[in-house]
Amino acid sequence: MLVGNAMNRPSPFRLLAKSSQCRARRGEIKTSHGLVQTPVFMPVGTQATVKAVRPEDLLAIDAEIILANTYHLFIRPGPALIREFAGLHRFMNWPRPILTDSGGFQIFSLRELAKITEAGAAFKSHLDGAPLFLSPEDAVAVQEALGADIIMCLDTCIPYPASREEARAATALTGRWARRSRAAQQDTGQLLFGIVQGGMYPDLRQQAVAELVDIGFDGYAIGGLSVGEPTEMLLDMTEHSAALLPQDYPIYLMGVGTPADLVEGVFRGVDMFDCVLPTRNARNGMLFTSTGRLVIKNSRYQKDQLPVDENCGCYTCRHYSRAYLRHLFMAREILAYHLNTIHNLYYFVELLRQMRQAIEQDNFIRFRKDFYARLTDPEQ
Amino acid sequence: MLVGNAMNRPSPFRLLAKSSQCRARRGEIKTSHGLVQTPVFMPVGTQATVKAVRPEDLLAIDAEIILANTYHLFIRPGPALIREFAGLHRFMNWPRPILTDSGGFQIFSLRELAKITEAGAAFKSHLDGAPLFLSPEDAVAVQEALGADIIMCLDTCIPYPASREEARAATALTGRWARRSRAAQQDTGQLLFGIVQGGMYPDLRQQAVAELVDIGFDGYAIGGLSVGEPTEMLLDMTEHSAALLPQDYPIYLMGVGTPADLVEGVFRGVDMFDCVLPTRNARNGMLFTSTGRLVIKNSRYQKDQLPVDENCGCYTCRHYSRAYLRHLFMAREILAYHLNTIHNLYYFVELLRQMRQAIEQDNFIRFRKDFYARLTDPEQ
Repeated sequence: MLVGNAMNRPSPFRLLAKSSQCRARRGEIKTSHGLVQTPVFMPVGTQATVKAVRPEDLLAIDAEIILANTYHLFIRPGPALIREFAGLHRFMNWPRPILTDSGGFQIFSLRELAKITEAGAAFKSHLDGAPLFLSPEDAVAVQEALGADIIMCLDTCIPYPASREEARAATALTGRWARRSRAAQQDTGQLLFGIVQGGMYPDLRQQAVAELVDIGFDGYAIGGLSVGEPTEMLLDMTEHSAALLPQDYPIYLMGVGTPADLVEGVFRGVDMFDCVLPTRNARNGMLFTSTGRLVIKNSRYQKDQLPVDENCGCYTCRHYSRAYLRHLFMAREILAYHLNTIHNLYYFVELLRQMRQAIEQDNFIRFRKDFYARLTDPEQ
Repeated sequence: MLVGNAMNRPSPFRLLAKSSQCRARRGEIKTSHGLVQTPVFMPVGTQATVKAVRPEDLLAIDAEIILANTYHLFIRPGPALIREFAGLHRFMNWPRPILTDSGGFQIFSLRELAKITEAGAAFKSHLDGAPLFLSPEDAVAVQEALGADIIMCLDTCIPYPASREEARAATALTGRWARRSRAAQQDTGQLLFGIVQGGMYPDLRQQAVAELVDIGFDGYAIGGLSVGEPTEMLLDMTEHSAALLPQDYPIYLMGVGTPADLVEGVFRGVDMFDCVLPTRNARNGMLFTSTGRLVIKNSRYQKDQLPVDENCGCYTCRHYSRAYLRHLFMAREILAYHLNTIHNLYYFVELLRQMRQAIEQDNFIRFRKDFYARLTDPEQ
């Protein structure tokens, strides 16, 4: 069994441009289902569907890559079924790259139902309470069955706040699991990413980076953030980890975030993001616009014939008024969730496209300044 | 005020072909938003959206015309708002014809909350209990604000079973309301249809037809069926009413029905149908196929890589397996409702397209026989 290190694996990442004034960078990642242009936002398709839209809608938005969820698909419908379909792509009718997370974050989220040991995570199904077990090797095998282009090591996420000892132990375990994950990986052409933990302790994050780089992965994720810490701490940890990671590999900030978080992440050298925010908020009637957030049920929109955002080119804004969207939302019509999701995902994907363009033009600092200047809602 | 009769109004209906062996006929109806090819099935878009799909999906299915609901739109968002959008078409982004029902059936469905008098229907909003009133004149005015291509007279639906006296009184009131509706109509270019009541009493239905024809409408609907009576009675009443109605005007069987009901309705000379069955059943996981009904949550479909119906050309059947649709349905994903609705509406619209073709080829009796021969599920 060959355990490689960074030297053994050619990087899937190619740098195309870099800001001369900050760490923002423009690149592409080579996967089995084509190139992903970075920096990129990955819509979340937890259960083998991005909620409330179909694959063609994501193509129309020009989503480069989507994320699916190992934990949820492990429980239902199970990796054996998806393997019979030769993987998620055919099962869900999605032709572009997919990243699957390892399930570590979901087990963390449901930690009242979970017990972490050296061997792996024992947990109970959130559906029926059935006892389940996922080792680092299992997580790799499941993701190989799912057939994602990019797969993630099983990690142990650290709550916030956590004691130094708690963070140290969990980070060390994540490192040992990462080594086992790498050893377990078959030659499937899938890219395997390691996850940097370390809690809010910079020196632990530094050790985590060193350990992962020693093992050698196809990309590196910054995990354990957006777990309740202040935004400043999120950004400090991101900056610290991103700067330590090998610059010739993709850097992925997991589970982040708001539009401003994405701008700040790119500013600090991050290439990849995922978050349920645009899709979940869409279903709650909260829409992102270039000037801030818009809550569609607000009575001020009752007769409003304008689109959600006059500067937006999405399907929803090209065809529907705020008044109609408000009507659909108040009436709890399924079309409300669909149209709102289209809009929010377009906003996120378009924001990243604009950032890519700004980096190509070495104009990112100006873009970032303009982004904040446009916001009239400081909540954004 | 001019009260016309059938002689005053040129019919919007043009007969294109007729079966030589039964009453089935092929025609077209001229409306402000184009021609409607008949016989036709109209998907139901109660609250200014056909649930779980967008207008482009209906165009892809080639739905000729959709139905919206005066009662629901009267309550929310209200006709004044929709008038500000110059009508439903622009409000909901639907370029083809719309028919609005009058609200009579909804008031009947909610009759614990309603009181019918000579003046009209007093009822309470099903949303907040607010007292509301709709006269026949109001129903016309509301539908003029909604801007549908075809509007319906307010009628009083008769429960099943009902005494002869009860049916007689309600039918007579529907006739007086029809006369008032016709008198109230403005010159908007909208087609106004009268509704034949009469319960399950053929002679009352005959009187109702005579009364409506004397007033003169642009089309005639057979109402008060599919209210709990046996299928044979539904078909007998349909046959009886359809035969009495003027054959140079469109004939619309309201709220019907199953695929077999549609075949039998066309056989008896009906041109137009609407029903929530395909959309509602889709959301409950019941799919229509050429061989019968398919309940997608059935465990037999767990690993089934076939499409819902191998003979179906809909978007859902072209891209997704039964196993994936079952997974989505079990996971309560919104995409399940969308894909199931696409399939069921395609089935209904395609069934009517096939019937139109069969009539054109004077082959309808053979089509009807083949339709039943294909069914392996007698429930169909």
